[in-house]
Amino acid sequence: MNWLDEVGFDERGLVTVIAQDAASGRVLMVAWANAEALAETVASGQAVYFSRSRGRLWRKGEESGHRQRVLEVRLDCDGDVVLYRVEQAGGIACHTGRESCFYRLLCEGQWQVVDPVLKDPELVYRK
Amino acid sequence: MNWLDEVGFDERGLVTVIAQDAASGRVLMVAWANAEALAETVASGQAVYFSRSRGRLWRKGEESGHRQRVLEVRLDCDGDVVLYRVEQAGGIACHTGRESCFYRLLCEGQWQVVDPVLKDPELVYRK
Repeated sequence: MNWLDEVGFDERGLVTVIAQDAASGRVLMVAWANAEALAETVASGQAVYFSRSRGRLWRKGEESGHRQRVLEVRLDCDGDVVLYRVEQAGGIACHTGRESCFYRLLCEGQWQVVDPVLKDPELVYRK
Repeated sequence: MNWLDEVGFDERGLVTVIAQDAASGRVLMVAWANAEALAETVASGQAVYFSRSRGRLWRKGEESGHRQRVLEVRLDCDGDVVLYRVEQAGGIACHTGRESCFYRLLCEGQWQVVDPVLKDPELVYRK
């Protein structure tokens, strides 16, 4: 049995993927993958997602350089969420230039930005 | 502005929620919440989700006793994923009696169960 057959892709052929920094334990980001993205991730050892906005595979870091080396791939009990444990290049996963996309903390009834911008996104995405 | 207005609920009124153990950093589980579940979580300090199968609020641990005390609530950059950082009662989040739902690791093309059952689920859910 192929491991991909045990992944519960939704009606669009997608599965939720969480990327977690293997060293710090930070939850870095959540994105989608299709079967092709998962297969390429495992074959290449680099995180690949499926970008719904672009309608194509998204090799994380292809523009920003902030690639993710995948050390582990895990599947949850329902089979519908995949976890990539990664080594995050540059220590930046978020397009805002922060370590993690989860940089807003609920504090006294407001979302407060609590994590610093490590690199100006204008510099990250400059061609 | 109400903090709930900044959460990007989908067309069903749901948002993806990740629960992470605040001490160990383990990603424990992924579930859904609606606005009511998020509001009750924040008000009570205990993780509340929305169970799609039961069609109602799911106060984590209501049957198993494996409650989650919520220490932090975070929101991602897109506003469509919420992260609960929790203290997991009994050290068991998964209905299989394991610490985490992500107990299967991809190893040589197979999903391998790599985490132990800490408590027999028959005992967890016995009335």
